[in-house]
Amino acid sequence: MSYLDQIASPTLLIDEKITRANLKKMASKAQQLGKKLVPHWKTAQSRIVGNWAKDYGIREVTASSISLAEYLCGEGWESIHIAFPFNIREIPRLNSLAKNQDISVQLVNASTAKALAEGLTEEVSFFVELDAGYGRTGIQAADEAELEEILKQANRSQKLKFKGFYIHPGHTYYGKNTQKIHEESQAELARMKAKYLDRYPNLVTRLGDTPGCAVMEDFGAVDELGPGNFVFFDLMQVQLGSCKKEDISVCLAVPVVDIRKDRSEILIHGGGVHLAKDVLTQPDGTKNFGEVVFLTEQGWELPSHYSFVKSISQEHGIIHASKELLHSVKIGDLLGILPVHSCMTADAMGSYLSVSGQKIDHAEGVRQTP
Amino acid sequence: MSYLDQIASPTLLIDEKITRANLKKMASKAQQLGKKLVPHWKTAQSRIVGNWAKDYGIREVTASSISLAEYLCGEGWESIHIAFPFNIREIPRLNSLAKNQDISVQLVNASTAKALAEGLTEEVSFFVELDAGYGRTGIQAADEAELEEILKQANRSQKLKFKGFYIHPGHTYYGKNTQKIHEESQAELARMKAKYLDRYPNLVTRLGDTPGCAVMEDFGAVDELGPGNFVFFDLMQVQLGSCKKEDISVCLAVPVVDIRKDRSEILIHGGGVHLAKDVLTQPDGTKNFGEVVFLTEQGWELPSHYSFVKSISQEHGIIHASKELLHSVKIGDLLGILPVHSCMTADAMGSYLSVSGQKIDHAEGVRQTP
Repeated sequence: MSYLDQIASPTLLIDEKITRANLKKMASKAQQLGKKLVPHWKTAQSRIVGNWAKDYGIREVTASSISLAEYLCGEGWESIHIAFPFNIREIPRLNSLAKNQDISVQLVNASTAKALAEGLTEEVSFFVELDAGYGRTGIQAADEAELEEILKQANRSQKLKFKGFYIHPGHTYYGKNTQKIHEESQAELARMKAKYLDRYPNLVTRLGDTPGCAVMEDFGAVDELGPGNFVFFDLMQVQLGSCKKEDISVCLAVPVVDIRKDRSEILIHGGGVHLAKDVLTQPDGTKNFGEVVFLTEQGWELPSHYSFVKSISQEHGIIHASKELLHSVKIGDLLGILPVHSCMTADAMGSYLSVSGQKIDHAEGVRQTP
Repeated sequence: MSYLDQIASPTLLIDEKITRANLKKMASKAQQLGKKLVPHWKTAQSRIVGNWAKDYGIREVTASSISLAEYLCGEGWESIHIAFPFNIREIPRLNSLAKNQDISVQLVNASTAKALAEGLTEEVSFFVELDAGYGRTGIQAADEAELEEILKQANRSQKLKFKGFYIHPGHTYYGKNTQKIHEESQAELARMKAKYLDRYPNLVTRLGDTPGCAVMEDFGAVDELGPGNFVFFDLMQVQLGSCKKEDISVCLAVPVVDIRKDRSEILIHGGGVHLAKDVLTQPDGTKNFGEVVFLTEQGWELPSHYSFVKSISQEHGIIHASKELLHSVKIGDLLGILPVHSCMTADAMGSYLSVSGQKIDHAEGVRQTP
């Protein structure tokens, strides 16, 4: 029996071979460069996929929330880093977690460092996040007073240990100047490392963004790489040049519920609650919420003619179909949709089905009410 | 102890009083007009909120998927309608469900009617969905041959019963011509009812969209109203004129993790995995992913000065803060965010906390892998 026979409703497929190839490629690159790869697990959010990663020498991961870190705890990770500016309301949860797991958190201000210094009962280390220059988060280069105050607060506590500097140059996602951004981020990490290495001889620097880690070759003195999306890739990364469509390792299987030949449209059960609503704008100005692939007994394959999801609402998706697809499709068929942003699609779906028919877990905890 | 003491991490709050007022107002309106209110439960997706609805005479609900219908089964609903073009791969699930629950489905083509006529083992009724004119789904007015073929296929089966016509004029969400769209949809339902009433004396017509149901007063010969979003409302509905901000009954509680006074920005733990990514464009061209409210022991209140979420990524949200907010806020505080699109926020969060401290359920089934 094929995995396809198990599917009646929208289902997120994962291809283990492609996922492993993505993990292996990035792990080999890091190894050749002499860097430690610590992937960001916000994309896969899965214990089973974590076990695949371990086959390529990966020993540490990064979580996007304390919920995800709790979910990953107990899986044998040497260390888990929570790469989100720490939320002091979660100190009790952090203390519980740190009893059983080596944990680091991320700091961007001294007020949080002070609360941690006062509230920690277990040992926790921390990265200071540097602002990569696109204004989302992190200490700005000019603000060394704040950085000194963080270190001073940490010194007040036996439990809070400075680990190093972290930078996420997320503006590579804008698709311009990846090389320049990458070089600036590296230079900033190098400058900070040089400045603080005397005082903190074990400090490390970590740089993490998939576009930079996928295409750049020079990582200078950076110690650790922390990309996340590369585990699955998606259409956004294809557009950015980080990968090919063949490297995308997840795909939403959707049932066809109506066909409108007069409008070249196929109505699918697959909407915002499944794919999420990330969207690409195509050269002709039309929107693309996902691209159609053909499902096979072994997984999926790219069709020779292009069809894409032109609009979505909560449950509905409308495909703009090629003539070839329109000619061959029937109501009740399954199609595959490559996601625009795989992290968000995986989070919306909450679990995977492998193309060999196994259910693959995904953290659900991030959605739980206290 | 206040509900606020329970919150460490992003949490979707629900105000029972406001929700009940929304339900009561729409139920009273329907009653005065002599129409049956059958709310679309795609918004609340909650058994407990369903029990609140029953206090206002609501006896039937609509589901957006078979997963949601399964979740609502056994809750005493006289009937559940699945308002999505039926997916024939789900016939076995439909047969199981229909053993225990009066169920109707929605049809937009004869191929699906044929599969149901052949595959049903339990009695199921159906609405034919009419295309309201914005091209998402439904039989087009000109395509009466398809409609006749649906009825013919249904007549082959003792199990498949024609219930009536359904229309969802979702183009009222574009914010223009609500009155005209509403009148056209009504006229189309009236025309079809007049045409088929002789052959199907019990047929009913249902019209469902929150903007139309909230602001229109004349529903002509329409039998049933099926709005969904009105249960919670949101900022999109405020913009459309369906409600006031005070009518919004859900709000995302988010922890403040950093403050950037120099940029008038507050960083919150609250991103696309919590709010979803629906967005409004403000008159000055800036984006708005949600509006800030102040949390109180009793719920929340609108501040006198406007602050909003200007950008989001997977977990991060950045608030553009008023001077007043910037002056009063501290790291570790909780703020409330009114959602742009409450259906999507509720689906992303997967559960609620009431402002009296009770956990309120939300269907999770839509995300489950087989």
